[in-house]
Amino acid sequence: MKPINILEKFKLFNEHWTPKKIGELNGQQLLLAKLKGEFIWHTHENEDELFFIIKGSLIIEFRDKTIELNKGELFIIPRGVEHKPIAKKEVHVLLFEPLAIKHTGNVISNLTVETFQTI
Amino acid sequence: MKPINILEKFKLFNEHWTPKKIGELNGQQLLLAKLKGEFIWHTHENEDELFFIIKGSLIIEFRDKTIELNKGELFIIPRGVEHKPIAKKEVHVLLFEPLAIKHTGNVISNLTVETFQTI
Repeated sequence: MKPINILEKFKLFNEHWTPKKIGELNGQQLLLAKLKGEFIWHTHENEDELFFIIKGSLIIEFRDKTIELNKGELFIIPRGVEHKPIAKKEVHVLLFEPLAIKHTGNVISNLTVETFQTI
Repeated sequence: MKPINILEKFKLFNEHWTPKKIGELNGQQLLLAKLKGEFIWHTHENEDELFFIIKGSLIIEFRDKTIELNKGELFIIPRGVEHKPIAKKEVHVLLFEPLAIKHTGNVISNLTVETFQTI
């Protein structure tokens, strides 16, 4: 029950591809992440995933097209759609997704974080 | 499956206290609203509600305290907590809440919108 300042929260961590939880509601979670470089191809079979760009420019590759998301833009990746995020420079994103989600989806890799730290 | 630019979407309407739907995911909806003046006291019995301030400064009164939310800040109002938003000047907010929610909660007033328009 207190205001959450997004920019202040981003100052609390520096790791890339390691989402931090800042809130929960209605079985969903609100995550912040810093992205840099290439992530892995993966799919969330049962969860739609929202990316909202707070800073920078994020490329998301799909098997049939590529999109670029800039600051102030958001995108909902429907469940079952394979995707690969790429950040040429550091990108800050707000993610909104179900509590049960794994950020690497159907793939277990050395990037997989089992439990998101709350900040 | 296309990027949504928040600032562009805000240019598409001018009504106050009339949320517009910009996306759906996981049984939840993403709404934009312009707020000005005082809303009504209301409660959402079964839904937590997220306010994320895109522009301006929003006051939310609770029965036991008052908070002020500024640009870049977000707040999750837990289900069952009576609240009253007040915007002294126009405020632009991003709302995230279950599809089933009514924005006036347990109260039907002349501000109640039965179905949110998609923009």
